[in-house]
Amino acid sequence: MTERGFTQAEFANRLSRAQNAMASKGLGALLLTTEPEVRYFTGFLTRFWESPTRPWFLIVPASGAPVAVIPSIGASLMARAGVRDIRTWSAPDLTDDGVTLLADTLAELVPKGERIGVPDGHETHLRMPLGDFERLRRLLPDRLLVGDKGILRTLRLVKSDAEIAKIETACSIAGRAFARAPEIAAEGRPLDEVFRKFQMLCLEEGADWLPYLAGGAGPGGYDDVISPATQRPLARGDVLMLDTGLVWDGYFCDFDRNWSIGPPAQETRDAHARLIDATAKAFETARPGITAADLHAVMASVLGGETDAGRLGHGLGMSLTEWPSLIPSDQTILEAGMVLTLEPGVETSGGIIVHEENIAITTTGARYLTPVAAREAVVL
Amino acid sequence: MTERGFTQAEFANRLSRAQNAMASKGLGALLLTTEPEVRYFTGFLTRFWESPTRPWFLIVPASGAPVAVIPSIGASLMARAGVRDIRTWSAPDLTDDGVTLLADTLAELVPKGERIGVPDGHETHLRMPLGDFERLRRLLPDRLLVGDKGILRTLRLVKSDAEIAKIETACSIAGRAFARAPEIAAEGRPLDEVFRKFQMLCLEEGADWLPYLAGGAGPGGYDDVISPATQRPLARGDVLMLDTGLVWDGYFCDFDRNWSIGPPAQETRDAHARLIDATAKAFETARPGITAADLHAVMASVLGGETDAGRLGHGLGMSLTEWPSLIPSDQTILEAGMVLTLEPGVETSGGIIVHEENIAITTTGARYLTPVAAREAVVL
Repeated sequence: MTERGFTQAEFANRLSRAQNAMASKGLGALLLTTEPEVRYFTGFLTRFWESPTRPWFLIVPASGAPVAVIPSIGASLMARAGVRDIRTWSAPDLTDDGVTLLADTLAELVPKGERIGVPDGHETHLRMPLGDFERLRRLLPDRLLVGDKGILRTLRLVKSDAEIAKIETACSIAGRAFARAPEIAAEGRPLDEVFRKFQMLCLEEGADWLPYLAGGAGPGGYDDVISPATQRPLARGDVLMLDTGLVWDGYFCDFDRNWSIGPPAQETRDAHARLIDATAKAFETARPGITAADLHAVMASVLGGETDAGRLGHGLGMSLTEWPSLIPSDQTILEAGMVLTLEPGVETSGGIIVHEENIAITTTGARYLTPVAAREAVVL
Repeated sequence: MTERGFTQAEFANRLSRAQNAMASKGLGALLLTTEPEVRYFTGFLTRFWESPTRPWFLIVPASGAPVAVIPSIGASLMARAGVRDIRTWSAPDLTDDGVTLLADTLAELVPKGERIGVPDGHETHLRMPLGDFERLRRLLPDRLLVGDKGILRTLRLVKSDAEIAKIETACSIAGRAFARAPEIAAEGRPLDEVFRKFQMLCLEEGADWLPYLAGGAGPGGYDDVISPATQRPLARGDVLMLDTGLVWDGYFCDFDRNWSIGPPAQETRDAHARLIDATAKAFETARPGITAADLHAVMASVLGGETDAGRLGHGLGMSLTEWPSLIPSDQTILEAGMVLTLEPGVETSGGIIVHEENIAITTTGARYLTPVAAREAVVL
């Protein structure tokens, strides 16, 4: 069993990598506002981020430990996470929801004239009211709020062994749940019931929670991979797909499985086999030094066409989807420690069929974190 | 059984209220980026927002139907939701992730010199990269991006009967799951197992999914209401609390229950009774015309002190927590159709104990959406 949490050395290493990057990019601090960003440097793990009411702030100074500026409701948990400098206000405060406290703290930690980096690139957002961010700028006229120069992206792209072990645990849990699909899915069962029961299987197999489940079912394929379940009963000839992002100790898996309801049509057999072949070819190609675009090209050459998904895989970790994207324009060079999904899709006469596995890049190649699917889709 | 989805009349009414407010506030369009904002005007319901990769945009023009500017992966589902004007790009695009398409669409829909409102107040955020928002500003030099003047807040504060029915359905599901707690929680059971099995009960009782579960357990009280579960087994004298925000058809419930593991100490009995009394007094007081602050005052007078939670209840709907806040400074006047949580908490020698129920404001008072808890905590 993988252990929960991380060693203090892990957090010290993350902080040191961040502060080295900040020094080279000329940043006097990082200001972080989203769940994975705050958790990356603190281990602060709570589902309370589901509430949009309260902003949470973490400051990574040029040297020394991170400083939390947070609602008082989180002080106890943040202290247990190991953060020593915690400044709180009673949130919500309708006239000043932590903004003055944050500005004062930044003014104390960051010398005048220096720049404060806020993640502003692809796959990021600012989790605080826009009006409050503009007010923060006005309260800090002598310091410049700028982008983070991609520092968080660079840090989070490469996972530690301890992080990969958590993702692998999540993959194992989902793998066991997928293997039990025959218990819950069959001709005549409504798709929404299958969704509900599949989530129960994931929990029974050890998931902490199920932030993401999508899927579809239809004759020879489905419409898309993002829709909620309908009440339509599964029918003979349907391809059923379930795609889950379940969480174990704050880390996601993200993969899917396809089943045939009754014997598959030849087109379905061919499509599924082509998806497995594309995945296998990408897996064999994956190694440090090639690019995300290379992995896309390898899969595209097997598939011979693309769906509307926009990419053939992506990074994975504390978020369901992370950098890089397996698209022709993503020249990110793979490194050992990156975790990726391989997610080829094909169009069929019935819609689309999509397959997905998760891999970790090693020093010499790659290894699967998921129990790899067979070339033939399982018949239910 | 409550029906899924909404009538077209419901969306027409939301749009008309929005456009009336926009006219009176001098806005030529609204630009929306978050899940509940986009869903409010379209019914676009998907768990795919869990992926932070792709931005999604909805424009509410001064007149006419909303226009979606979205990744191609969502076009099929958005069309099924009933949106006719859908403009897509193949996301992710690392050099221009929908920003030019969005700017062109806004330029087409909004005359030069007019203002475009973006939610910027309390409980809002902008779900797109900050760098892209700054680029959008530069691409639209002849139009001003400003705040939404609280329009989304005002609209979402008051729910339709159809919305309240969905919240009530979610409350019923959670109520049935809470009633089955004796099946899963008892002395010796680890808290993380209780969390996992409680989520299974919620699914079995009909939840679509479980975005939120928190809780705690400890002798005579718990540390806070936001922590994930530990592996500590429940012990005699513990107060166990589970607080769930489960979703049915896109609408949340948000309430908790407390149990005593073995017979409760006198302090626990007194604390629980005081919480129920505070809730009941607030319920009796709640009616159109009084303020959120009034409800806070009523509960505070029974409790005689506050915890670190920062408030004694809040709005509830498409998000786990919404405006208003039951705090002394929130002067929001209650109206029929508002849905609120009443969430008093007290400190005990063991930590805190928090109770929560959900109510809807009616034309003459209020009604409970939750099956109200007894004054005595259930003994397990």
